[in-house]
Amino acid sequence: MNSGFANLPRRSLPEQGVAEFREAFGDRFVTAEAVRRHHSRDESPYPECLPDAVVFPHDEAEVAHAVRLCDRYRVPIVPFGVGSSLEGHVLPIEGGITLSMAGMDRIIALQPEDFTVTVQPGVTRTQVNDALRDTGLFFPIDPGADASIGGMAATRASGTNAVRYGTMRENVVSLKVVTASGEIIRTGSRARKSSAGYDLTRLFVGSEGTLGVIVEATLRVYPRPEAVTAAVCSFPDLADAVQAVVDIMQSGIAIARIEFMDQRAVRAVNRHSRLGLPETPLLLFEFHGSASGVQEQAGIVREITGDHGGSGFDWAEKPEDRARLWAARHQSHFAGLQLRPGARSIATDVCVPISRLVDCVTQTVADLESVDFPYTIVGHVGDGNFHVQMLIDPDSPTEWQEAESINRSLVHRAIGMEGTCSGEHGVGIHKMEFLQAEHGAAGLELMRVLKHAYDPHNIFNPGKVVAWDAQS
Amino acid sequence: MNSGFANLPRRSLPEQGVAEFREAFGDRFVTAEAVRRHHSRDESPYPECLPDAVVFPHDEAEVAHAVRLCDRYRVPIVPFGVGSSLEGHVLPIEGGITLSMAGMDRIIALQPEDFTVTVQPGVTRTQVNDALRDTGLFFPIDPGADASIGGMAATRASGTNAVRYGTMRENVVSLKVVTASGEIIRTGSRARKSSAGYDLTRLFVGSEGTLGVIVEATLRVYPRPEAVTAAVCSFPDLADAVQAVVDIMQSGIAIARIEFMDQRAVRAVNRHSRLGLPETPLLLFEFHGSASGVQEQAGIVREITGDHGGSGFDWAEKPEDRARLWAARHQSHFAGLQLRPGARSIATDVCVPISRLVDCVTQTVADLESVDFPYTIVGHVGDGNFHVQMLIDPDSPTEWQEAESINRSLVHRAIGMEGTCSGEHGVGIHKMEFLQAEHGAAGLELMRVLKHAYDPHNIFNPGKVVAWDAQS
Repeated sequence: MNSGFANLPRRSLPEQGVAEFREAFGDRFVTAEAVRRHHSRDESPYPECLPDAVVFPHDEAEVAHAVRLCDRYRVPIVPFGVGSSLEGHVLPIEGGITLSMAGMDRIIALQPEDFTVTVQPGVTRTQVNDALRDTGLFFPIDPGADASIGGMAATRASGTNAVRYGTMRENVVSLKVVTASGEIIRTGSRARKSSAGYDLTRLFVGSEGTLGVIVEATLRVYPRPEAVTAAVCSFPDLADAVQAVVDIMQSGIAIARIEFMDQRAVRAVNRHSRLGLPETPLLLFEFHGSASGVQEQAGIVREITGDHGGSGFDWAEKPEDRARLWAARHQSHFAGLQLRPGARSIATDVCVPISRLVDCVTQTVADLESVDFPYTIVGHVGDGNFHVQMLIDPDSPTEWQEAESINRSLVHRAIGMEGTCSGEHGVGIHKMEFLQAEHGAAGLELMRVLKHAYDPHNIFNPGKVVAWDAQS
Repeated sequence: MNSGFANLPRRSLPEQGVAEFREAFGDRFVTAEAVRRHHSRDESPYPECLPDAVVFPHDEAEVAHAVRLCDRYRVPIVPFGVGSSLEGHVLPIEGGITLSMAGMDRIIALQPEDFTVTVQPGVTRTQVNDALRDTGLFFPIDPGADASIGGMAATRASGTNAVRYGTMRENVVSLKVVTASGEIIRTGSRARKSSAGYDLTRLFVGSEGTLGVIVEATLRVYPRPEAVTAAVCSFPDLADAVQAVVDIMQSGIAIARIEFMDQRAVRAVNRHSRLGLPETPLLLFEFHGSASGVQEQAGIVREITGDHGGSGFDWAEKPEDRARLWAARHQSHFAGLQLRPGARSIATDVCVPISRLVDCVTQTVADLESVDFPYTIVGHVGDGNFHVQMLIDPDSPTEWQEAESINRSLVHRAIGMEGTCSGEHGVGIHKMEFLQAEHGAAGLELMRVLKHAYDPHNIFNPGKVVAWDAQS
C-alpha cells in the first residue's frame, strides 16, 4: 500500500477527447501540475496519485456533459469535494478526470416548513448550517471535517449527532444524480416517506461515486432544540466508560450526543485546542429538548455514570463553551496528528452492536499495547462505533505492517461480533479486502452486478468499493 | 382492471418441474383449488387470480430450493404473507408458484440490549410485540392490518407511529434474502450504522418480491415509553384540522402519533367498534416520553389545536381506552367497507410535503364531491400521507372509472406538489402507471436495469413495480 499506484493501468483521454473537454470547459479544464497535485490525495495514508486533468463544472448540465465524454472515451471520472475522505476514495488510481465540485456550492432552496433544504454537492456542512441560521433549524450530520454534502452523501457519513438524528442514510431526502448515459435523474420526491418503487436514494447514498455523480441533494433538517446542555465526565478506565454508555443507551433516553475519548485523545485535543479537560477516559454528552426535559435526561445520565465510577460531571451550559468542546472533538483527527509530527494516520472505523462494544474495545486495546507507535481512541460510542487513530512513520514498513495488522484483526473481530468494517468512513480502497468477509461472496456479487449494470464502462471512480470483473 | 388477468400469458411448470416440487415438498406442494383460491387476491379491488400451485416452505433452505426450481423452469414465484396488501402485490398474474410464508413464523432471536429482534418473514407485527412483552421494548410499525413482517418489509410499510419512529425503511436493520440463483445472502450486519458498500438492505426493503425472497428480518425495536397519553380533538372542518397538524409539526415536538379522520371515517369506526367519538373531523394524538415530558407535549398541542378551532381535547389515559382507540383506527379500512355492504374499496395513498397538505386534501375533497359513491378520509397526516377510501359497486363500470379518475388526478396533484404516488402501500400493479411521472423515464429505467440484473429470467413476482422489457 505504501508503494503507490504506479503499476495500475491508467486510462487517459485521447487527443480528440482533450479537445472536446477544452471546447466545453475552456480554462476550467486544468492540466497544471499544481492543481492536479491538489487533487491527488485525501486524509488516508495513501501516497499521492495525480489525475490527468481536473474539471471545474458550474452546474449539473456540465457534469452530465463531462460524464458523457468520459463514457464515450472509457475514461475514469472521480468526483472530489474537499478531499477529507479517509480510505483513499478520491484517488484517481486508474487516471482520467477529477471533477472538482467546489464551484457547485449554491444553496438551491430552503423549505423550512417542510424541514428540508436543497443544495448543490459542493456546499459544506457548515455552509448548510449558516444558510439555516435564521430559520430556527439545523442540519445535524457532522463528520470531523467540514466535508462537502456530496462527499458526505457518497460515503454515508455520520458523526457525533447520529445516535439521535441518524446518518446520511436517514437524512438525505432525495438526490439528483448523473448516470453513466449522462442523464440527470431525481432519486425521489420531497415527501417524508414513499413506497413508490426501488429506493434509488439509499442506493446512491454510500455508493462513493462508483454508480453516478451526485449533483444535488435535498436534506432533512431539524428544529433547533429549545434547550441544549453538554457535560463531560471522567472515568477511572476505558471499560467503565464504555459500560456506562451501554447502560445509558439501554435506559432509552433520547440523548443527542454521547462521545468517548481515551486519555491520549484528550491530551491531544487539550494541546491542540488549549482546553483543560481532565486527561482520563472521558465521556462527552449533549442533551437536546425542553428546559425541563434536558434536566431530566442529564439527571438520569449522571446517576448511571456515577454507578460506573464516573466523576466530575462538568457542565458546559454556555453556547460558547459547548462550541469549544465540540470543535475540539471534531478536530481530534488533526490534534492526534500533532502527537507525532510528520506521522501519517491510519484510522479504524468498526461499528458493533452495543452489547459487544466493551469486549471489542478492550480486546483492541490489548493489541495496541504490543506496538510502539502512538495511538488515540475516540468513538461515537452510542452507535457502537469507535476509531483508533494509529500514528505511523510513513517511512517505516514495520509500522505500516503493524498498523495494518491491527486494523485487520479489529475488522475481523467486529465482523465476528455481527458488526461492520466501516461505521461511517466508507470503503474506498482501504476496506475493499473486507467486504467479502462482511457480506459473503454472494452478497458482494450482488454489489458487483449492480456496479456493472449502472456503469457498464467502469468510468465512475474505478477501483473503489467493488473490484471490476472484466469477465462479466 | 375489472376484467381480470385472463389475457396475460401464464408460465406454468412442466411435468418434470411439478415432479421435482412434489419430491421436495410432498403434500406442502398444493394444487387444490380451495388453497389456490385462498391465495388468489389481496385487499385491492382486483378480481381473483389463482396460482398454479401453493408451496409451504419450512425454512430458508426450502425457499432457496423453490427459487432454484422456478428459475430453472422460468416460472414465476410470488411470496405471500397474510394477503393484506392493497395494490394487487400478491396476485400471480403470470401464473406459477405462490410461496406461502405462513409456516415460517419463528422468532429467531431477541437481542434486547441491542434493540433488535430477528424473525422469520411469516411472523406478524403483533406476534413481534407479543414476543417483546417481557423485555420492556416494542416494535412501532403498524399498518392497519396485522401484516407479516416479510410483507411489511417488501412494501416499505409504515402506519401511525411513523411520524416519530420512521417506516420499515428506517427500522429494518438487515435482511436475509434468496437471490435468483438460489443463494441466501445477508444484506447487512446488526450494527446501528454502516458505510460498508451499497445499501442492499434498503434495496430489498420496498422491492415487493420482485428482486428476491425475504427469508429473515432483523428489526429495530424501542424502549416502551415511561408514559403514554392519547387525546382526541374535534374540528369544525377538515382544513382547520390539517392546518393544525402543519403547525404542530412545525413546533418541533416529538409527537408519537398524529392521525386524521374525517367525519365519515369517524362514523364508520363508531359503528364498527362501538365507540362514541364525536362525528366531526378529528385529530387523534399520542404522546410518548417521561411523565412530565408527555404533559409538556400535550400542553403545546392543546394550545395549537385551540388556535385552529379545535375543541374537546379528550384524554384517553387508561391503557385499555387507548388500545380501543387505536384498534378502531387500525380497523378503519374494514369499518369503511361496512358503510356499503358488498362494495369493494379503492384506497388512495399519496404523501406530500407537509406545507402542501392542506391544498392537496381540500382539492381532493372538491373532486370527491362530484361523485355519488361513499368515501372516507383518514391520514397519517404528520407525514403528509392520507388515504381516501372509495367504496364502489364492483359491478358498476361507471363507479370504477370515476374512482380511478379521482385517484389518477390525486396522484398527479401529489407528484406536482413534490410528493409521491405511494406513501406506504407500495406499487403492486395499481401504481405502475404513475412511476414514470414520479421518477422520470431515466429514473424508471434505472429501476428496470436493476430488475433485469437481479432477476434475469423475470421469475420474482413478475408484472409488478416495473414492466419487463423483453428487448433488453
